[in-house]
Amino acid sequence: MPEAAGKRKAENEVNGEQPSKKGSAFNEFTGVFDGLVQDILGLLPKELPDESLAYIKKMCHYTCYGGKMTRGITVGATYADVARSRGEEPSEQAMFVAKVIGWCIEWLQACFLVLDDIMDESHTRRGQPCWYKLPEVKKMAINDGLILESCIFLLLKKHVKPYNVELYHNCVELFHEVSFQTELGQLLDMTTESPEGKLDFSRFTLERYKLIVKYKTAFYSFYLPVAAGLYLAGLTGEKDLELTKEITIAMGEYFQIQDDFLDCYGDPETIGKAGTDFWSSCQIGTDIQDKKCGWLCVQALMKCNEEQVEGIPKSVFESLLAKIYKRSK
Amino acid sequence: MPEAAGKRKAENEVNGEQPSKKGSAFNEFTGVFDGLVQDILGLLPKELPDESLAYIKKMCHYTCYGGKMTRGITVGATYADVARSRGEEPSEQAMFVAKVIGWCIEWLQACFLVLDDIMDESHTRRGQPCWYKLPEVKKMAINDGLILESCIFLLLKKHVKPYNVELYHNCVELFHEVSFQTELGQLLDMTTESPEGKLDFSRFTLERYKLIVKYKTAFYSFYLPVAAGLYLAGLTGEKDLELTKEITIAMGEYFQIQDDFLDCYGDPETIGKAGTDFWSSCQIGTDIQDKKCGWLCVQALMKCNEEQVEGIPKSVFESLLAKIYKRSK
Ligand SMILES: [Mg+2]
Ligand SMILES: [Mg+2]
Ligand SMILES: [Mg+2]
Ligand SMILES: [Mg+2]
Ligand SMILES: [Mg+2]
Ligand SMILES: [Mg+2]
Repeated sequence: MPEAAGKRKAENEVNGEQPSKKGSAFNEFTGVFDGLVQDILGLLPKELPDESLAYIKKMCHYTCYGGKMTRGITVGATYADVARSRGEEPSEQAMFVAKVIGWCIEWLQACFLVLDDIMDESHTRRGQPCWYKLPEVKKMAINDGLILESCIFLLLKKHVKPYNVELYHNCVELFHEVSFQTELGQLLDMTTESPEGKLDFSRFTLERYKLIVKYKTAFYSFYLPVAAGLYLAGLTGEKDLELTKEITIAMGEYFQIQDDFLDCYGDPETIGKAGTDFWSSCQIGTDIQDKKCGWLCVQALMKCNEEQVEGIPKSVFESLLAKIYKRSK
Repeated sequence: MPEAAGKRKAENEVNGEQPSKKGSAFNEFTGVFDGLVQDILGLLPKELPDESLAYIKKMCHYTCYGGKMTRGITVGATYADVARSRGEEPSEQAMFVAKVIGWCIEWLQACFLVLDDIMDESHTRRGQPCWYKLPEVKKMAINDGLILESCIFLLLKKHVKPYNVELYHNCVELFHEVSFQTELGQLLDMTTESPEGKLDFSRFTLERYKLIVKYKTAFYSFYLPVAAGLYLAGLTGEKDLELTKEITIAMGEYFQIQDDFLDCYGDPETIGKAGTDFWSSCQIGTDIQDKKCGWLCVQALMKCNEEQVEGIPKSVFESLLAKIYKRSK
């Protein structure tokens, strides 16, 4: 995987960091990635041509590896916290399973991002062309999204099932549940931005904003990794999970509002190519131009009364919005 | 569901059949459809706006209902055959579960067809515009494909899990396995037809043809319904399933070869809009023009020696092929 390795190095160089600076949790997590890709390739039918294996290997490296990988790392962090709170040392075996489940979240995200980029007609993602933009990929990226999703269940079956079959069944249902929530969030998002192609600011309400964020981002980014870590620690009680949901959804909301704020006011040098918003194309400063139902736009609309919004043409409102929320540099 | 009901009637009228002619297995199977859609809507989060429910309901009716539904019906037929071979009457409860699993196969197919039509840039499917072609859908169809897939696991969890939890776990893994095989088949198909956009007849081998058919069509269309019926009858032995795989894959091959033959020589009046190939755009007679790795093309290439294929320009070969295999009417 020379390309992938090269990219990782380059990314660190841009941020002026040494790989070790990212901390051992990061290194331990990324350290199992190549092995998991090999596991997937090993599970492919033997009669498949080599070119198919090479294609899937390349796709996994291109689309799953990158970004901060906070989601994936959080599974092990959660499990270890619970274990230590009980005065136990996190077991090595459980920590490996945590990494596998963590990578499954990264694979799930890769599936969503590959497909979201097609739907949004984005050009770049994490500083490189979107997967579907590659000439040898194009429309195949739609099927590739499904393959990325299938990899989740290959990995869970290979590594989690032999470790603990009940945990395996719980994880499978958790991934089904959260995938569906994210798909509903994507549906909400796309029908808010342009139901039947028309932009309608009356849909940009705070209520709708929160609903989109909850379903499209918070469940898979915040609830899923923490819930998986709790499962691994044996905490599967209804009450624990409900409380976890409440807290993680609030964290997701906070994260997205901050992300929307930084989209306008963030310092590109600091936020850089790594980006904080995995759903957008990672370019800073285009939410308003893209007519997204973002936090700033919703706040501006809340300060207008109905006639003000109705009375002015959309294009004027947009440029007004862009001027009000003009970037400091 | 006035539109759906209307369409069903119209379809029967075109074929000059009364609904009852389709047999009671067909009517019993289709009879549970509306209830299953209601189940899905009932499982959506309560905070979702009504328009999202309406959208999902419309999508299920538009994309899941139609065609011969042989796949879905086969689950119950298989289970009933095994039960009767044991001198037992198929239980009513088990027959309902068979219909649920059967509909899950139809939902899976809907997912694949919605996405395949986007990738193939098809225009029509089962005599109506492809789902992605609707102005209120377009690119959202990609996410809709994922939602259709998620519906499978909602239905299995609601109806199969309380009936028999082991059957439920087996079905979940079976759907994962077969989905992945179908995705690999789609990958094989797309990289055969135009790896990096270029047409290369040297890839149109009999071996490759069989591999594509096996993975893209036979597993989900033939193995999946029969295996699910066996599971329901309690037959989950490795040997039974291996034998089932062997037989159903051979059936799938036969089906696809016949389908390819009919694409060229079939009588449009007989085959009509119902179509036999769920992967193609259901228009008869365009496989050769579409440069598909079809049975006739593979057979023609087997009659040419290498120099013959190498020596003539592709376009000449294609028109030759079209002339050799010219339709009788
Ligand atoms: Mg998007
Ligand atoms: Mg953003
Ligand atoms: Mg996007
Ligand atoms: Mg196709
Ligand atoms: Mg055909
Ligand atoms: Mg097609």
